[in-house]
Formats: sequence, structure tokens, C-alpha cells
Amino acid sequence: MNMTLGELGEFALIDRIVKDLMKGPEVILGPGDDAAVLSVDSSLVVSTDVMNEGIHFRTDWSSPSDIGHRAVAAAAADIEAMGAVPTNLLIALSAPKETQVAWLDRFMEGVLEECESAHMSLVGGDLCGGSAISVAVTVLGQTRGKPVIQRSGAQPGDAVAYRGRLGLAAAGLAVLSRGFRSPRALVNAYQRPQVPYGAGVEAGRHGATALIDVSDGLVADLNHIAQPSGVIIDLDSGTLPVSEPIEAVAHATGRDAKDFILSGGEDHALVGCFPFGEVPKLWTVIGRVEALEGRDPAILLDGEEWLGRQGWTHF
Amino acid sequence: MNMTLGELGEFALIDRIVKDLMKGPEVILGPGDDAAVLSVDSSLVVSTDVMNEGIHFRTDWSSPSDIGHRAVAAAAADIEAMGAVPTNLLIALSAPKETQVAWLDRFMEGVLEECESAHMSLVGGDLCGGSAISVAVTVLGQTRGKPVIQRSGAQPGDAVAYRGRLGLAAAGLAVLSRGFRSPRALVNAYQRPQVPYGAGVEAGRHGATALIDVSDGLVADLNHIAQPSGVIIDLDSGTLPVSEPIEAVAHATGRDAKDFILSGGEDHALVGCFPFGEVPKLWTVIGRVEALEGRDPAILLDGEEWLGRQGWTHF
Repeated sequence: MNMTLGELGEFALIDRIVKDLMKGPEVILGPGDDAAVLSVDSSLVVSTDVMNEGIHFRTDWSSPSDIGHRAVAAAAADIEAMGAVPTNLLIALSAPKETQVAWLDRFMEGVLEECESAHMSLVGGDLCGGSAISVAVTVLGQTRGKPVIQRSGAQPGDAVAYRGRLGLAAAGLAVLSRGFRSPRALVNAYQRPQVPYGAGVEAGRHGATALIDVSDGLVADLNHIAQPSGVIIDLDSGTLPVSEPIEAVAHATGRDAKDFILSGGEDHALVGCFPFGEVPKLWTVIGRVEALEGRDPAILLDGEEWLGRQGWTHF
Repeated sequence: MNMTLGELGEFALIDRIVKDLMKGPEVILGPGDDAAVLSVDSSLVVSTDVMNEGIHFRTDWSSPSDIGHRAVAAAAADIEAMGAVPTNLLIALSAPKETQVAWLDRFMEGVLEECESAHMSLVGGDLCGGSAISVAVTVLGQTRGKPVIQRSGAQPGDAVAYRGRLGLAAAGLAVLSRGFRSPRALVNAYQRPQVPYGAGVEAGRHGATALIDVSDGLVADLNHIAQPSGVIIDLDSGTLPVSEPIEAVAHATGRDAKDFILSGGEDHALVGCFPFGEVPKLWTVIGRVEALEGRDPAILLDGEEWLGRQGWTHF
């Protein structure tokens, strides 16, 4: 449709989005009233995330559909990281009124495709004018009677393991930042992170003591486990998934390939701590949890302080 | 504190916000992990709203604290409008990194004061850079076993009644738009809308058949009841709350005082339909619901089509 958001208008745009929306079994009332109504069997898990143009994405590096996929994936990963099941989404989009309706259509295509991958349904949102594109996503999940997995429960002796991708998105971003479009596998990994949906519940079944998703960087996020748990996490560099395309980008950019894996965020892998011998099959062990023994909580690499790049903060 | 958000950094800012946060009895896990965890007794009600600088507010017309109050009030009103109890809030703030930490402190003061008025607790959020200030609020509420009040249930013969303020915010905005700061009562009404907290549950107790909060304009929002209910709503102009300060602004701006009441939004009054004789004491009757009898759903004023200004849409 060759029209702008301003020309079509708020209510027509919302109608366009909400028609034919899928509804999960927990949805008592979907979009269209003042609020959505959901049935919750015991506890609810909820998180909110914002992605801003120019800060979290550039419209020349990510398609509208990519932006929709990423916004949903990043938010859903937070629910997985509690060991819960993501179920529903609310999305608030701000966009300049000159934005094409076709842009919104493709963005929502990405949102809904990612919702389908995660078995979530969209139940609400907001749509309004703004000076740049900003996407605020709220994701709801349910524990279905299982305890949540916090960041604070890591125990000395636990194995540290991950499931998903590590470092690919950061390497893809490095490629795009230098004006290249390949290796495609890395660029795709940045544009469409693949959250290992279901891995949160799987971690819970295997008795995970702490769990987080890698959004700011592996070391930065493991630090969010080490600090509240009061432990040291020692990573084994030999187990880090350094792949050929990451090596190529490291070589081209003069960086250490391990840097991308240790400091790269936005892949939204899940990383957690498991009692020794309890690591699920699809997870890869990359280190172990140690007692402080007089030291401060920290992340080590092969027993030494890691002096590489730190993770990402948003200010 | 004489520092900017960029200087203090994301994690220190979040620590600053979440320390000493109140927790409602339903909060199992508050901010600090990947997501918050809440206990829900039966159904959950959820809604999300965005307020953008330059579109929904101007920093020279609203203090940081006003902006916090308004963002929370507007979102909580959506839960009231379902006949439910607002319980929890998540807030995502985007702001330029040059923003002063003192601005954030005062904004959060407003957010938390309004949460207290509504008996809500803050359970999560996000904080990140952006080209302008943007506030995305998600509010959660609980039905506590009562049915929700939708927009679609209005019945011919029902009385239409409101509780809260009508037209004051719009008149206050007209005052500010012309560079004035008084009448103060109107300017204050615009800066700090007073949601009639508890009125949603009260409406439910009295058998309300339809309910909405006035955010886009009285006529525009009543139309959101008339259309899905398939009814005509006829307002009685003699019952509209035209007050002396609104008369004064109408006179000064060459508008009809009733215009502010009929087309003004953002007061977040609750307006709904009640079986005849069931209107709660604190509510004011302003009209009645009629059967279509061959007509299209519409809002009338004294039996005639109202040709004044329409409500507000965001594109």
C-alpha cells in the first residue's frame, strides 16, 4: 500500500494489524478494548525492552521485518532466561508519520513470524508518532507451576553451559559497520538472532541454578550471575565456539576471535549454571563455577582476569 | 546530582531507581533479574501506552515529575476502564544521554507518586538512549474473580455516566498553547490528570455494561462504545460540566465551552453505561443509550448530530 502512516491514520492502522491475529488458549480478550485479558494458571513472568533507531538498529542494516524479529526475540529471551514459557506480547511502536504503511506491514510480518516461532500471541500495543522509530516490547510468560530460575543461585562446582549462538551477531555487526555484507551467515545472525526457544524450560528440568540470556555480552552477562550469586566463573578458552567466519572477521578487523564470543551480545543465547553432570545434551559446557575464597565475584578466562572488551551498556 | 545519564551509566541509573522500591503482595520477584514474577489469582489485565516528547508532551509545559505522573495515570486508567484493579507497572524510558540525572530522579518521583495513588508497584523496566524522551508504560491489573467490563455491552435504555474530570485538560492545553499559565486549575489538570482510582471496580459492582476512559475525547471515546455495542448514545448538553474557568478559556479562544468537554481527552475520566437506576452515587449522568432503529451507531448531542471538533488520533 503506497500510503504513509499519517495518511492512513491510527485506527485504520490498528485494524490492519489486529485482523486475523492468532490467539493463544490463555487469551480471554485480545486487542481492541482498553486492555487485554489473560488467564494465568499460577505465576506470571513479565519483562519490557526498548529498541531505538540509531541506537539499537539502523534501517540500512536491518529490514523492517528484521527489526520486528529482533525486537520480539530479544524480549522473549528474557522470559526463557527465567525458565518460563513466553506466551504473549504487547508492542508499542513510535514512528514518524511519513513512514510508509508498507514499512509497518513488513515490520509486523517480522513481529508475527517471530511470535509464531516462540508460540506467542500478540495481545495489545500502541501506535503513535515520534521523531524516530522506537519499538517497546512487553513480553509475558507463564511458569506453569515450575519455579523460576534466578541469576543468584549459582553454586561452586556447577558447570557453566550455553545453548544458542555466541559472537555471531557481534561479528555480523562488525562486518556491517565496515560497509560489508558478508560473510552472510554472520550478517544474518545479527539481523535475525535465533533464540533457542524452549531452552529455558529445558534448563529448569535439568535443575539449572542460574540462567541469563546473552544480550550485553557473554562476560558482562555472566557477571550478572557471578555478582548476585557471590561466585567466580572460570571459562575455558578451548571450549569457546570460534568458527571459521568469526576467525575471518577477526583477522580482517585486527581483533582476537575470542573477543567476539566473550564480549558480543545480542545473539540471545541462554547461558546458565548446572549441577555437575546435569547439563542437558544440547548445551555446551564452557566453564565452571568456583567459590570466592577471599576473592571478589568475577569472570575469569583460563583462571586469569580477562582484559578484553567489556559488554554493551546503553548509555 | 549534577551529572548526565551518559556519565552515570545504565546500571548505576537502574540501581538508583530500584533501591527502596515498594512491593505489592502479588510481587514474587521485582526488578533486577531478566523478568519480574507476579502471582495472579485468576485473570490478568494488561495494556501498554507510549508518550513521546513533542507529540504527547513538551518539556516546557510539563515538569519531569508531571510527565511521570501522566504516563502512569494514562496507563492505569486503561485497567480501571476494564473494571479491574491496577497492580503493577513496567516503564521503559528512552532519553538523550545528555539528560541530567536530576531530570530522571524527578521523573521517577512522579512515576512512583502516581503508583502510590493507584496502589501499584513498579516491577520492571528498561532504560536506554534515544534522540528524544519517550516513555513506554505497561500496566498490569487483576480482575480478582470479577468479570471485565468491555466496550461492547451497552444496551438501549442504559444511562451514560462519568466519574472524574471532563474538558479540563484540553482547556489547560489550550491555555499553554497560547503562552499563558493560568487559570492554574486548568493547567494543573492538563499537567496532572486525576484518574478516579477505584471507579472501575465500582462501575463493575453496579453492573456497568460498557466502560472506557476518556483519553482521545468524550465523543470519540463514547464512539468506541457505540460502534461495537451497535447503539446510539444521546448526550444531554444541559448536564455537561461547563465550569467558569472553561467558559473563560472558551471566550478567550473563540470556542464553544462544550467543545472542550465533548472533544477534550487526556483527563482520563471513566465513562460508561449502566442499567437505568444503577448509576453509582459519585457518577454524573450525561446521556442515554438508544437502539439503532435503522440508524448507524453514533453519538448525538440533544438528539442531533454534533458537528464540533473530533477527538485526537496520534497520526
